[in-house]
Amino acid sequence: MSDTGDRMQKIVSLCKRRGFVFQSSEIYGGLKSAYDYGPMGVELKRNLMNEWWRAMVHTREDIVGIDASIMMHSDVWRASGHLSSFSDPLVDCKVCGERFRADKAPRAETGADAPIELADKGRAKTALEKVEKTLGVTLERKGKTLVGAKATDRGYVCSNCGSPFLSEERQFNLMFRTNIGAVDPIGRATEDVLALMKRAQEEEVDVAKAVQDLLAKAVTDSAVYLRPETAQAMFVNFMNVVQSTNMKVPFGIAQTGKSFRNEVTVEHFIFRSCEFEQMEMEFFCRPGEGPKYMEYWKEERMKWWRSIGLSDANLRFRKHDDDELAHYSDGCYDVEYNFPWGWDELEGIASRTNYDLEAHSKGSGKKLNYFEPETDDPETGKKGWRYVPHVVEPAAGATRGMLAVLCDAFDDSEPAEEGKPQRTVLRLKPRLAPIKAAILPLVKKDGMPEAARGIADAFFKAGINASYDETHAIGKRYAKHDEIGTPYCLTVDGQTKEDQTVTIRYRDSREQERIPVAKAVEIVRDALAAD
Amino acid sequence: MSDTGDRMQKIVSLCKRRGFVFQSSEIYGGLKSAYDYGPMGVELKRNLMNEWWRAMVHTREDIVGIDASIMMHSDVWRASGHLSSFSDPLVDCKVCGERFRADKAPRAETGADAPIELADKGRAKTALEKVEKTLGVTLERKGKTLVGAKATDRGYVCSNCGSPFLSEERQFNLMFRTNIGAVDPIGRATEDVLALMKRAQEEEVDVAKAVQDLLAKAVTDSAVYLRPETAQAMFVNFMNVVQSTNMKVPFGIAQTGKSFRNEVTVEHFIFRSCEFEQMEMEFFCRPGEGPKYMEYWKEERMKWWRSIGLSDANLRFRKHDDDELAHYSDGCYDVEYNFPWGWDELEGIASRTNYDLEAHSKGSGKKLNYFEPETDDPETGKKGWRYVPHVVEPAAGATRGMLAVLCDAFDDSEPAEEGKPQRTVLRLKPRLAPIKAAILPLVKKDGMPEAARGIADAFFKAGINASYDETHAIGKRYAKHDEIGTPYCLTVDGQTKEDQTVTIRYRDSREQERIPVAKAVEIVRDALAAD
Repeated sequence: MSDTGDRMQKIVSLCKRRGFVFQSSEIYGGLKSAYDYGPMGVELKRNLMNEWWRAMVHTREDIVGIDASIMMHSDVWRASGHLSSFSDPLVDCKVCGERFRADKAPRAETGADAPIELADKGRAKTALEKVEKTLGVTLERKGKTLVGAKATDRGYVCSNCGSPFLSEERQFNLMFRTNIGAVDPIGRATEDVLALMKRAQEEEVDVAKAVQDLLAKAVTDSAVYLRPETAQAMFVNFMNVVQSTNMKVPFGIAQTGKSFRNEVTVEHFIFRSCEFEQMEMEFFCRPGEGPKYMEYWKEERMKWWRSIGLSDANLRFRKHDDDELAHYSDGCYDVEYNFPWGWDELEGIASRTNYDLEAHSKGSGKKLNYFEPETDDPETGKKGWRYVPHVVEPAAGATRGMLAVLCDAFDDSEPAEEGKPQRTVLRLKPRLAPIKAAILPLVKKDGMPEAARGIADAFFKAGINASYDETHAIGKRYAKHDEIGTPYCLTVDGQTKEDQTVTIRYRDSREQERIPVAKAVEIVRDALAAD
Repeated sequence: MSDTGDRMQKIVSLCKRRGFVFQSSEIYGGLKSAYDYGPMGVELKRNLMNEWWRAMVHTREDIVGIDASIMMHSDVWRASGHLSSFSDPLVDCKVCGERFRADKAPRAETGADAPIELADKGRAKTALEKVEKTLGVTLERKGKTLVGAKATDRGYVCSNCGSPFLSEERQFNLMFRTNIGAVDPIGRATEDVLALMKRAQEEEVDVAKAVQDLLAKAVTDSAVYLRPETAQAMFVNFMNVVQSTNMKVPFGIAQTGKSFRNEVTVEHFIFRSCEFEQMEMEFFCRPGEGPKYMEYWKEERMKWWRSIGLSDANLRFRKHDDDELAHYSDGCYDVEYNFPWGWDELEGIASRTNYDLEAHSKGSGKKLNYFEPETDDPETGKKGWRYVPHVVEPAAGATRGMLAVLCDAFDDSEPAEEGKPQRTVLRLKPRLAPIKAAILPLVKKDGMPEAARGIADAFFKAGINASYDETHAIGKRYAKHDEIGTPYCLTVDGQTKEDQTVTIRYRDSREQERIPVAKAVEIVRDALAAD
């Protein structure tokens, strides 16, 4: 296994072992690409997302938050373009049956050899017969490989077996659809189809098309979609926010929460999954000021990713090429992180012009604009300027942000020192750590548990997330808290009842010193504040 | 309009006007029963749910949190019983076409007069003909009412027009279904139905049944469900949590988050909606200890609802009668709140025996149990006790909790005092208030905005959610902050630059005093801590 794959597997394994991330519905065989956050994961994710909220909403006067519903009206997605074009091109292989994304398939020049590789000889024999019988093509078998086929002008071959014998591409929409209201779509479709069959006995009907239309109608009549991004809710609520808060342009609307995409290709653990969390902000500005604020938000957002502990060396910008940009966009940068599998996107910062508000204004028939009574209209020169604001959007992934934090913090490289074992440690920024302080009685007797519980209570009262932990030998407990990233372990020992001190052990250095029990909360609080 | 309806409407109106709650997808006509939380609402909801998390997870050593996916494997809902029985009985009226819940319809004794009341005379005439033609029943019309019909032994009549002419009851499952994976269920169903039609030309087929089966199969093959409650994830993850954390029975697993129910009857604003948020905890204990912990959690949870500011007089317990209890449950209490429309449920505290873990153990084939190595097995008397834990579940509604908080805090009763206008004030517990301190320059000149922004920055740095606000006259700003529940307004005026003081105005008393700028953060922080 490669080093990077090995590192990734170690992280996945730690996530399960220590309660960061479990496969969803695991005891039932697991749900493809959905994950549950365990006792440590939920705290890390909350801390990360709260840091974003603090930076974007609580410590700025020009941004407010919202929390919109996940199910949204289908007209929202019609206006935004997601219903017609938020899709992947899918293809079926006629040899092995694999369904795959055409845009991610292996490239192959027209006319190039396209060897087809099956899993074993038996399957290769079956495939040879199938190709001859159903496609009328004769190939030659060499072991488990069929040779003789050539790549077509499609420009790609099957991502599984390499075959050039492929179905047409079909657009597969990535939005999850469900139905709302007291109508059973299957019941209605059944009635509709039966009525059609009756009608087809009496008159000429294009039955195939009619069945497809009826079924589509039955489910789309009451269809609602799970949002594939949180952003649209900020546009749809633009006027509500302006009217209820009196925010003045430039200002932003921020939202965190779940989004859903029926991804065909899921990969890299929680990096690309069907259910994930986002941290998005739409910043509304005057026409023409998009590029300026894109530069501003580029810098702000990069600073933030650094502030939560990601290494400089693992962060970079990637400017979108002109041919990557949406037709309305006048600029976009990705913040990329150097994951174990390579550089990949953490956040996109896009200048979106006035496309979104215009689209929803057109779609809804409602005016979505902004009025500056004291400003001269640049076109007429008269006082009072009404315009459709332009938008800069820093759209970050919370789920993949958490993965980046785990990757950056994971360290099993520390060489064994004398008397100290090799260890795995999560070098999390203390303010992101699930548990800030572990309170550990050295042994479960001599009043140590009681003393430790008293200290834990003091931390609870101070609002610092602490953990009382008495299970296993002390070395094992230190190792556990290293693995979950607890920055400070406080140990109650025999000396505690004599002089009212405990040891504090620092995660990163493993150094220990004695501190007074009475000052424990203050010392940890100061250390966290200095973080 | 009744007083209670009037009060409710005032609260709904304030929620929209001040940015607490908007209808989802409002500019597109609104999505039935889903709501968006605006700039104030998102903060209030976060504060409420963070209070719960702090009380249940952060300040206790015996409870850990999780955050599971919303989409769960269909087998989870098969095992829990939700697929077969989480449904409402629906009925269609053959006269007016209304679809309604049989269990919520108006009762009527067998043989009692059942007058049918239509909207107007015209509709009544049409209905009279329809009843005669399609049902063969002759009635008499008096104005817009049809008389002569009698209630049947169904025991109820149409909830809209009062008619006893009703369809059979059908069970309507409340779970939202969607499909995951790269299969288009409509495309597959179309293919299946066309193949069936071909086959039906050649052999005898029960076409109606076959069509229904095919359609059901096409959508259920890749079906996943949006969770109708967060609770099942705690059962499904029981072993993962035990293994990763070493928690010892008794202990709890807590979760907050969205749940989804395709409610036929939605009512009372955000009280019963299709998308809502829950705060649930499953407390695992030894067999036989359920009733004891139910009593414990009853008291704890009632204390908590009081601690966030709900009045004693508006809170009560309601014990479930034996015939309300699920067959496996050995006790359940609701915490009820006295909403403007009457007493209604905020939280259920149920003793669920070992039903849930047993059901998922049976459903998944995985052992879900707990081992106490040092305890004697009560049956065998031998050391080492393995058992399926029993569960006590305090399951609270976060969305309806927020509504209760708004209802309790809303006050427009304050009589006008001399020189002070009548006002509306949200008397929120300061720690729930969306904004803790408003920093207001008296006027937008003489350096007051700069001084006020400096103070706001100090609050931002201290992590206290403050708001800088310079729009409108000072009286209007006080009125706004009363309406959103801001406990402290700090006003920078002409004296500020002379003696470095500002006025602090207390929301509840409207009293004002001068305090030093340098002590502003400390004074507000102390007041919040004393809350």
